[in-house]
Amino acid sequence: MALRAVEHSQEAANGLKEKVLTLDSMNPCVRRVEYAVRGPIVQRALELEQELRQGVKKPFTEVIRANIGDAQAMGQIPITFPRQVLALCVHPDLLNSPDFPDDAKRRAERILQACGGHSLGAYSISAGVQMIREDVARYIERRDGGIPADPNNIFLSTGASDAIVVGRGQCGKPPPLLVRSRRVCQPHLPSRPQTVLKLLVTGEGRTRTGVLIPTPQYPLYSAALAEFNAVQVDYYLDEERAWALDVAELRRALRQARDHCRPRALCVINPGNPTGQVQTRACIEDVIRFAFEERLFLLADEVYQDNVYAEGSQFHSFKKVLTEMGPPYAARQELASFHSISKGFMGECGFRGGYVEVVNMDAAVKQQMQKLRSVRLCPPTPGQVLLDVAVSPPAPSDPSFAQFQAQERRAVLAELAAKAKLTEQVFNEAPGIRCNPVQGAMYSFPRMELPPRAVQRAQELGLAPDMFFCLRLLEETGICVVPGSGFGQREGTYHFRMTILPPMEKLRPLLEKLSQFHAKFTCEYS
Amino acid sequence: MALRAVEHSQEAANGLKEKVLTLDSMNPCVRRVEYAVRGPIVQRALELEQELRQGVKKPFTEVIRANIGDAQAMGQIPITFPRQVLALCVHPDLLNSPDFPDDAKRRAERILQACGGHSLGAYSISAGVQMIREDVARYIERRDGGIPADPNNIFLSTGASDAIVVGRGQCGKPPPLLVRSRRVCQPHLPSRPQTVLKLLVTGEGRTRTGVLIPTPQYPLYSAALAEFNAVQVDYYLDEERAWALDVAELRRALRQARDHCRPRALCVINPGNPTGQVQTRACIEDVIRFAFEERLFLLADEVYQDNVYAEGSQFHSFKKVLTEMGPPYAARQELASFHSISKGFMGECGFRGGYVEVVNMDAAVKQQMQKLRSVRLCPPTPGQVLLDVAVSPPAPSDPSFAQFQAQERRAVLAELAAKAKLTEQVFNEAPGIRCNPVQGAMYSFPRMELPPRAVQRAQELGLAPDMFFCLRLLEETGICVVPGSGFGQREGTYHFRMTILPPMEKLRPLLEKLSQFHAKFTCEYS
Repeated sequence: MALRAVEHSQEAANGLKEKVLTLDSMNPCVRRVEYAVRGPIVQRALELEQELRQGVKKPFTEVIRANIGDAQAMGQIPITFPRQVLALCVHPDLLNSPDFPDDAKRRAERILQACGGHSLGAYSISAGVQMIREDVARYIERRDGGIPADPNNIFLSTGASDAIVVGRGQCGKPPPLLVRSRRVCQPHLPSRPQTVLKLLVTGEGRTRTGVLIPTPQYPLYSAALAEFNAVQVDYYLDEERAWALDVAELRRALRQARDHCRPRALCVINPGNPTGQVQTRACIEDVIRFAFEERLFLLADEVYQDNVYAEGSQFHSFKKVLTEMGPPYAARQELASFHSISKGFMGECGFRGGYVEVVNMDAAVKQQMQKLRSVRLCPPTPGQVLLDVAVSPPAPSDPSFAQFQAQERRAVLAELAAKAKLTEQVFNEAPGIRCNPVQGAMYSFPRMELPPRAVQRAQELGLAPDMFFCLRLLEETGICVVPGSGFGQREGTYHFRMTILPPMEKLRPLLEKLSQFHAKFTCEYS
Repeated sequence: MALRAVEHSQEAANGLKEKVLTLDSMNPCVRRVEYAVRGPIVQRALELEQELRQGVKKPFTEVIRANIGDAQAMGQIPITFPRQVLALCVHPDLLNSPDFPDDAKRRAERILQACGGHSLGAYSISAGVQMIREDVARYIERRDGGIPADPNNIFLSTGASDAIVVGRGQCGKPPPLLVRSRRVCQPHLPSRPQTVLKLLVTGEGRTRTGVLIPTPQYPLYSAALAEFNAVQVDYYLDEERAWALDVAELRRALRQARDHCRPRALCVINPGNPTGQVQTRACIEDVIRFAFEERLFLLADEVYQDNVYAEGSQFHSFKKVLTEMGPPYAARQELASFHSISKGFMGECGFRGGYVEVVNMDAAVKQQMQKLRSVRLCPPTPGQVLLDVAVSPPAPSDPSFAQFQAQERRAVLAELAAKAKLTEQVFNEAPGIRCNPVQGAMYSFPRMELPPRAVQRAQELGLAPDMFFCLRLLEETGICVVPGSGFGQREGTYHFRMTILPPMEKLRPLLEKLSQFHAKFTCEYS
């Protein structure tokens, strides 16, 4: 600020003009984003890493980025077969190399045949390479016990939704819960939910489209709603029942919302982020019935469908359930389901790949969606290749099957399951921390007690209490997690989201270190 | 339409509810996009390709997609070295392979070291891998004769802008010139110009931000302006002088615009799309002086900077020129310059890579831009790798230098130059077609005479006359080009944009076929 004042006076002294584009003259919507998406946690993490590199003495030797749902950044090894196929597609000379298995070569040839100019360097059509859309459709059919999937209802995408939360994780805490009708403009999120949301949002004032989203939620949704000036309608997940979704609470939220907006859509994240719950089939049926009765378009974020760990938990796709419920739901309940290559067992965040499947969408609206997507960027071709392998993995008779399935996939998922369990266990051993079972996804979202004096101190500093805790945690242990205030939580409760992704040998020490810090912090402010 | 009517009456008869999301209940902005971005040309091209595959007899044996600026789709071979480096990054086991040159291996190792988890599968920071930003800065310094570039002024991106025109080319004609103050909502374009534009757009009614864009223009800009509800201010390039940019015309446009908006930015595309002109240094200086006097933020789309063919033409970067002009411009004229891996000699459209460099941007605004980008998707890592190779090609002492530079790069650019010249020559031999020199970029934008009866027939059909021509051309020859009405043109003139990219052996026959069709069409309607 001091520098700017000096510049200003110099300019005034010289009779020079101000810049065209200044804080005062810029888009005020973008400025408002400042308050929602600041980066104290991650900016500080970056600074601390820098200081460590410069040899500054710290109470820790490394910063642990347990804020980002990025498995490979935390050391998870890429699965071999998809990378082989992609390397062959990138550099087809390798088709002559003895170092690649035949099945990888056949895959790559098949994909290249389907590409413009037989090269990944050409644009695909904007919905994605047609052959890959067909492969995705077959994946969905296998997953859902044979229920048909139409490739023309499948749109490949740049897999942005998870990147958004990483962007936030990298750069700052996620936005605090936005006031429902506050017009905070968020930057555009070129994600798949965004395309569908864009179609849905209409009206003005009290007829403005409302969208029900969970609390706590993955802040992509609140940001997208702010971007489109839709009305955010929060429904609370039930912490006492392992973050279950309760239709009575949906009704409550909907009823209150109808006072000031026109609710038209309902978002469900299953398995949940940040909560890790895996919804029961009965619950999903209730949600579908509710959505149908209340005429809500369902958006199902199912990117963690391969990340289910708890005994007794099972992933049920919204599409499968609504189809098996028969009429009127099967042919009439409108749904968009999202998936991504960033999660699961492949964890290929950087490549950007995913898809949306639309179910029972009005044909004319689908054309509109095709049009929307047709003037957008074509999804990056490497991400499309990895998606293709993800949805058509090696078959048991293929040379690469054993390594892919029995070794790598199984090992990754088993390790994630073990980490999920360990996380829950260690946190529940800590007085003042209570962690619901991490049934799926990649995070724990434990609740912590914070003494009143700490809450007060936070308020004096203008910080959310859990943000205050997380900043101190980072400063004193190097552990970087995201405060619950960024995801939404019941008033007067405090949480943090930590990934289960740190390497196994480091995880227990980290969990214990964090628990110890919490005890120390509690003591300090008692 | 008939099907919908039936559905409606069935639903009414059954007492069933309509869908939640219908044409009537959806976002009206998206519907309006329908009229601007329909796909008659490319939809028809797709249908014709389908019919050919089914064995339907046509007056041609293949559809020639001369509408898309996608070199590899038209058979251009990828450059070897970048693909080797990328394959090594994708599948690092190949670092042990004897089939890769040492310099490619060292590059890949260097890049992977700079990635999270040493893997392309991890997210990068949203501005792009820091090391790659630094490499881009050094490229810019070499290009501009040593003028410093700061990596922190460089933001890597998903290279969307060219994809947008391809999306349009694939899906339909580009939008007709939009009425300046018409609020036509366009889908979001996650491009680099879009980020900068988003920062610039503010105000209401007569204080709404206006942005000067060329006519004819690459329709990304009109779409982005509509998306942000900025006011489009057209300035005409001078067809009589090889599409030169005339400051007097800029003044005219600006003066008129001030009646109804607040012009704050000026877009220049150099080399030009669709026009192919390469601006002279004197012209660029004039533009910079004008922008500075009139307090306009400059957006320089320079993605074709490697595509300069004509003798006597040379690329001058806006940054270099404004810096060499000295004070007050050097330290005060605000500029954003855009580049991409989709064009040049690599033509890697599908991978999605590029960057923006901001010059003399207010520091606080730059923080805002960083914030905006930080909550967006991270640019796809493969595109970042290819960009890195593009900006740091093999040095003369490297093993790969000869093949990269002397063989492949030189061959591609020489062929493009030959195609540019051939295109201009053949079209200028045709009566009724006049083609300005294709000094650079990848397109010709010839002007054609259309007989009044053809114009009338088009109007009867509700088509722009050049669209009518292009549809007939496609139907009878299989040649797919884009009508000038989509790019903007002087009233009463007709153009089409054709790429120079078809394979050399096919190009002359195609150009002649098109010319012959034009002659036949002219005859038919005389």
